[in-house]
Amino acid sequence: MDTKERALLAHEQWRGKLEVKTKCRIASAEDLTIAYTPGVAEPCLKIKEDKDLQYKYTGRGNTVAVITDGTAVLGLGDIGPEAGMPVMEGKCALFKTFADIDAIPLCVRSKDVDEIVRTVELIAGSFGGINLEDISAPRCIEIERRLKEKCDIPVFHDDQHGTAVVVSAALLNTCRLTGKKLEDLKVVINGAGAAGLAIARLLLSMKVGDVILCGSRGLLYEGKPDINPEQALLAAMTNKNKVQGRLSDGIVGADVFIGVSVPGTLTAEDVSKMADKAAVFALANPVPEIMPDEAKKGGAYIVGTGRSDYPNQINNVLAFPGIFRGALDVRASDINEEMKMAAARAIADLVSDEELSPEYIMAPSFNPEAHAKVAAAVRQAAVDSGVARI
Amino acid sequence: MDTKERALLAHEQWRGKLEVKTKCRIASAEDLTIAYTPGVAEPCLKIKEDKDLQYKYTGRGNTVAVITDGTAVLGLGDIGPEAGMPVMEGKCALFKTFADIDAIPLCVRSKDVDEIVRTVELIAGSFGGINLEDISAPRCIEIERRLKEKCDIPVFHDDQHGTAVVVSAALLNTCRLTGKKLEDLKVVINGAGAAGLAIARLLLSMKVGDVILCGSRGLLYEGKPDINPEQALLAAMTNKNKVQGRLSDGIVGADVFIGVSVPGTLTAEDVSKMADKAAVFALANPVPEIMPDEAKKGGAYIVGTGRSDYPNQINNVLAFPGIFRGALDVRASDINEEMKMAAARAIADLVSDEELSPEYIMAPSFNPEAHAKVAAAVRQAAVDSGVARI
Repeated sequence: MDTKERALLAHEQWRGKLEVKTKCRIASAEDLTIAYTPGVAEPCLKIKEDKDLQYKYTGRGNTVAVITDGTAVLGLGDIGPEAGMPVMEGKCALFKTFADIDAIPLCVRSKDVDEIVRTVELIAGSFGGINLEDISAPRCIEIERRLKEKCDIPVFHDDQHGTAVVVSAALLNTCRLTGKKLEDLKVVINGAGAAGLAIARLLLSMKVGDVILCGSRGLLYEGKPDINPEQALLAAMTNKNKVQGRLSDGIVGADVFIGVSVPGTLTAEDVSKMADKAAVFALANPVPEIMPDEAKKGGAYIVGTGRSDYPNQINNVLAFPGIFRGALDVRASDINEEMKMAAARAIADLVSDEELSPEYIMAPSFNPEAHAKVAAAVRQAAVDSGVARI
Repeated sequence: MDTKERALLAHEQWRGKLEVKTKCRIASAEDLTIAYTPGVAEPCLKIKEDKDLQYKYTGRGNTVAVITDGTAVLGLGDIGPEAGMPVMEGKCALFKTFADIDAIPLCVRSKDVDEIVRTVELIAGSFGGINLEDISAPRCIEIERRLKEKCDIPVFHDDQHGTAVVVSAALLNTCRLTGKKLEDLKVVINGAGAAGLAIARLLLSMKVGDVILCGSRGLLYEGKPDINPEQALLAAMTNKNKVQGRLSDGIVGADVFIGVSVPGTLTAEDVSKMADKAAVFALANPVPEIMPDEAKKGGAYIVGTGRSDYPNQINNVLAFPGIFRGALDVRASDINEEMKMAAARAIADLVSDEELSPEYIMAPSFNPEAHAKVAAAVRQAAVDSGVARI
């Protein structure tokens, strides 16, 4: 059986990858009086007086909702909320396996931004954090921003920020390996959707020298007429020299290419125009922007993809479990840029100086040891940046 | 330590009565490709083609949401959504312990009926059933009715129907014990809120001879001016002789008193006016409408309360786990009157002919054997009434 058949059979056997277990024993009428009525009235009354005590007397502080509207599931597009559920369950399974977080999969039967925001806002009191997932751009950016304003818990759209964190880790190790400095780097990001824009923001936070975004209609620059408001915001902060034109124009002299776009958008000839010791991170899945051997042919020194069958898999499974673990541990009110940067550094540091090589700038995606280290770094960054609440 | 202190300590130690466990092993990179990407795309695509396959490839069919807005939690009133969560978690723990159902506690931060309905409707695709809980009357009636119309899964407000089912079971055993027939019974229900109205409806479905509801402004009869629309609907179907006046007027000659109201509303003198072999079910909690010894003093033959420290505890914990188990097992589109009546009969039958006595008309509330029997009866009723979908 191939992977597809095996996955289908496994899902049929599991019939849900998650189950709920009780932490309290209910083996007698006496147990009922403690876990349920009348005993349960006491924690209720305590929380009524002080809502913060919900973190003391309920599971809220270790519970994360994994929420989609099914509009951008994996690379499958708008397959509907119900069809997104196997992915949400899988994500929840990873949260549990890697970070001991109790995650609940939820799909929302609406594509309306206002409705999605209001729905999530109204149930947010049940959770310690919200992980948005597989929501199409640019809606996902607005949904996340509005939810961050309205919710008293961290809201994190993993397709944006999880990706940004692992790409940043790859960039950090590119610098470690090549001796280049972040502030001297020229980075071209192909794909000006949610992931591309989030990567650009995080690279700017990390003081990367020059970041150039390239959308479907060419390089973004301040004043470009045919871009959306989210893109315009970033255009004003990037592309220092206001280079215009296509990807092949922007790529000249670039140290790093980051592709979060579609297969086949980068050629070996493009790569040959990049700077010395160039890095190519071609993350389109399952077929990257350029195949690794083509990128090498063009002269790339480091190549990373989203695939597990090539070196340097860049996969956000290294990021989100530890990021949420760290945020929940200190009851952070937000997952901010400082926490994401700390996660990126922790992920980069998973690769030791001895291990570091062009074929090994990213630790393996299946990496049970990684998440505690990421969590520790994120906790500290939350405290240092003032968003920790305990 | 008393129960209050022990409950508080236990809740602090649990820090949440539930946890999420994974049914799939994720112990290698290979496992990831089956449970997560790329394998997970296959069940997603299958469900995209046929939404019903969500029941085959995800946990939806065994998952129930336990939802409150915190407006009528236990007897504590409107304590807020966050403060209701310990009860919702407890309910979920009972669902798991007694019926192996994966239940998810959710609180909604709104008191607006439209918003609550819309919120639950939009997330209903994540669940196989919705258990509404501790929502104040009469809003809960409208919320449930509208959700039943909008959702493709069973929606059940336990405070209404769970209570109606166990009270009906008590009534059935009253008839078994006294030789009275349902169609000859005169039943007075004190309390014309959500529970009282639901009890009245179920008793009418069971062809009880005469049902009289008594609200805070006296007996309900057709045409009574100062009642709400939900009460008016029932008033038109009950109180055959249009008796007016107070509880003490309605109780004359009644075979059964059912109290879902407030402490101290029934006196021994009232009971003395009831029919021979009268039954008093005084369910106000923790202090009943009349204390059992007072009711006996007035001549009651059978007395039941909501309390565990007197005989005949009438507690809906006997009902809801088996009802949902049965409904989920056949993927019922609804939990209808037939299924509730079947549950009531199954609960009544938990008491054998040999055991049946005025002090033992209800099986104990902590009764792990009960739920499978209730589930079997509910499954059959779902099939017979045409709401089963498998």
